Amino acid sequence: MSSANSSVGSAPKAISWPGLIEAYRPYLPVTDQTPVVTLHEGNTPLIPVPAIAEQIGRQVRVFVKYDGLNPTGSFKDRGMTLAISKAKEAGAKAVICASTGNTSAAAAAYARRGGMRAFVLIPEGYVALGKLAQALLYGAEVLAIQGNFDRALEIVREMAETHPVTLVNSVNPYRLEGQKTAAFEIVDVLGNAPDWLCIPVGNAGNISAYWMGFCQYHQEGRCDRLPQMMGFQAAGAAPLISGVPVEHPETLATAIRIGNPANWEKAIAVKDASQGAFNPVTDEEILEAYRLLASQEGVFCEPASAASVAGMLKVKDQIPTGATVVCVLTGNGLKDPDSAIKHSANQFKQGIAPDLTAVAQAMGF
Amino acid sequence: MSSANSSVGSAPKAISWPGLIEAYRPYLPVTDQTPVVTLHEGNTPLIPVPAIAEQIGRQVRVFVKYDGLNPTGSFKDRGMTLAISKAKEAGAKAVICASTGNTSAAAAAYARRGGMRAFVLIPEGYVALGKLAQALLYGAEVLAIQGNFDRALEIVREMAETHPVTLVNSVNPYRLEGQKTAAFEIVDVLGNAPDWLCIPVGNAGNISAYWMGFCQYHQEGRCDRLPQMMGFQAAGAAPLISGVPVEHPETLATAIRIGNPANWEKAIAVKDASQGAFNPVTDEEILEAYRLLASQEGVFCEPASAASVAGMLKVKDQIPTGATVVCVLTGNGLKDPDSAIKHSANQFKQGIAPDLTAVAQAMGF
Repeated sequence: MSSANSSVGSAPKAISWPGLIEAYRPYLPVTDQTPVVTLHEGNTPLIPVPAIAEQIGRQVRVFVKYDGLNPTGSFKDRGMTLAISKAKEAGAKAVICASTGNTSAAAAAYARRGGMRAFVLIPEGYVALGKLAQALLYGAEVLAIQGNFDRALEIVREMAETHPVTLVNSVNPYRLEGQKTAAFEIVDVLGNAPDWLCIPVGNAGNISAYWMGFCQYHQEGRCDRLPQMMGFQAAGAAPLISGVPVEHPETLATAIRIGNPANWEKAIAVKDASQGAFNPVTDEEILEAYRLLASQEGVFCEPASAASVAGMLKVKDQIPTGATVVCVLTGNGLKDPDSAIKHSANQFKQGIAPDLTAVAQAMGF
Repeated sequence: MSSANSSVGSAPKAISWPGLIEAYRPYLPVTDQTPVVTLHEGNTPLIPVPAIAEQIGRQVRVFVKYDGLNPTGSFKDRGMTLAISKAKEAGAKAVICASTGNTSAAAAAYARRGGMRAFVLIPEGYVALGKLAQALLYGAEVLAIQGNFDRALEIVREMAETHPVTLVNSVNPYRLEGQKTAAFEIVDVLGNAPDWLCIPVGNAGNISAYWMGFCQYHQEGRCDRLPQMMGFQAAGAAPLISGVPVEHPETLATAIRIGNPANWEKAIAVKDASQGAFNPVTDEEILEAYRLLASQEGVFCEPASAASVAGMLKVKDQIPTGATVVCVLTGNGLKDPDSAIKHSANQFKQGIAPDLTAVAQAMGF
């Protein structure tokens, strides 16, 4: 089949990206017996953001890792392809999670593709149906319990222990193994690790996964340095900065609205080992970065994703001259149309007469 | 920079996809003087859909070209990277289009990234603000005129003729040149052209662009055959099948709700030259394919996109045994959350007691 491919011309060509398990098989806990459930996730673009880099100057290069272009629209696909493949290998007929957002969508898509049922447990009245539309269309079976989110989490754990159902919440160890491949991709594309890796921190799983990936590649000699891991939390949900859990975390960046991160100690260890730092960003700073990314760079992410760029700009004076910085954008802006409506600069003019003169005037000509 | 890349191991790795202009430069109307405005669009996954192939049997292989994973969520990015780059090369300071959907989002993202203003003209009262949220966040300046859509189209043409503003509606010739690269990618990945290319047909630009791409690659010897081009229109908006314009096109697949396609003759010529066929699909068939893709294959597309799969299944008996079929999915399902809410199978159970027994029972254990 590949003869036409290799025989003619020197022009570049699209590659058949097989998904991240096949691409990074030697680095992942899979065997020939593992049935690979993939939507060809990963290999997301590393996009230069020159207008943002210009705000820093000093020859600093800035890229965003746009993981919102994964198949279900977030970085969760990286962990889920592995978690679901391993669940299938173990003979699971169903998976379960307690989630109202990106995890439930990813779990449903991969589970259904793998021929399994996907259960999503949520607290009743806690979440608008719109947030679950994607998971429901993927065929998730959503169960609303008369209890809070913590109780939902307890029940999914108990279900997984007592029934032939695999838990795919963040405690599933394969999730982080899959997520670490984003670090591999960055090194593969840049040819080395960046100087700084800026990343939103909620449950602190992703920062741990990235570090795992960079370290593994470093050990294998695929990069000759390690990045400083710069984590950013929403100011109203910043337990890793204050040092104490936040009982009522508050931020419009829902994907990182977490008061007691599951990977607390891991994340602190990553910060220390990488000589990185954690800093808070306000909702206002997050929204400004969210608008900046879209309206200057053409990149539309979830508000929580913009925390990485907001944070980088906040501490930009600490960036070494000439450094290469990668900011992680974890989710697609299309996931949250309400925020786009509410927080765009909203340049919308109505009541214009339907003639050339009136339109030209409205355009400023 | 690439030393770490090439020195170690034989494991595969992510590539730095430069966007489609750089990837397919020899095939595109650009020169060294063209400033390339890119979001690294293209190289979207070609995903096998085995559950759907099973409905056909006879060793037919079916793939979907998931163009919803382009940066702004639709295939429009392919045309827009070229249209905006050429506009910038020509010294334009602004671009304009009359569009309420994917075109306006793509135009805004690329224009703003290229440092230009982006104007979107719409008929007042015609469109919900939500549909424009993405374009507005990208920084589009939306002007609502007191007139209908046809009048808006006339005015944008007049504006482009009389002011330093480039028209990026579908009449812009660079749009199709960019869109043809999707055909290149399919050939590059499969190693040859597919036997069938199934595609939703609205304005009929995309089917013309794909054909242009396949023919160009064929001439260059990069594939040794050409596909049969199978176009599918919504039954309520099927002028290319009835042979007469539809005054009031009706379908929930808004992206192909077009009564008088701009590329009418081109599309008929493509059908004839490729020995293809055009067929109608009902909204019900479209929705069934939309649900099937999401809930069996884990692929979430716009309803209009699902017309390609719906159509293929409708005429599946005509598919040659052992054939390779590619169905084009033009847009990301996240673009249209309302459809997802309205048309999912909606497996949602409420009022479950917060204990293991009740949850297990609700799950069917």
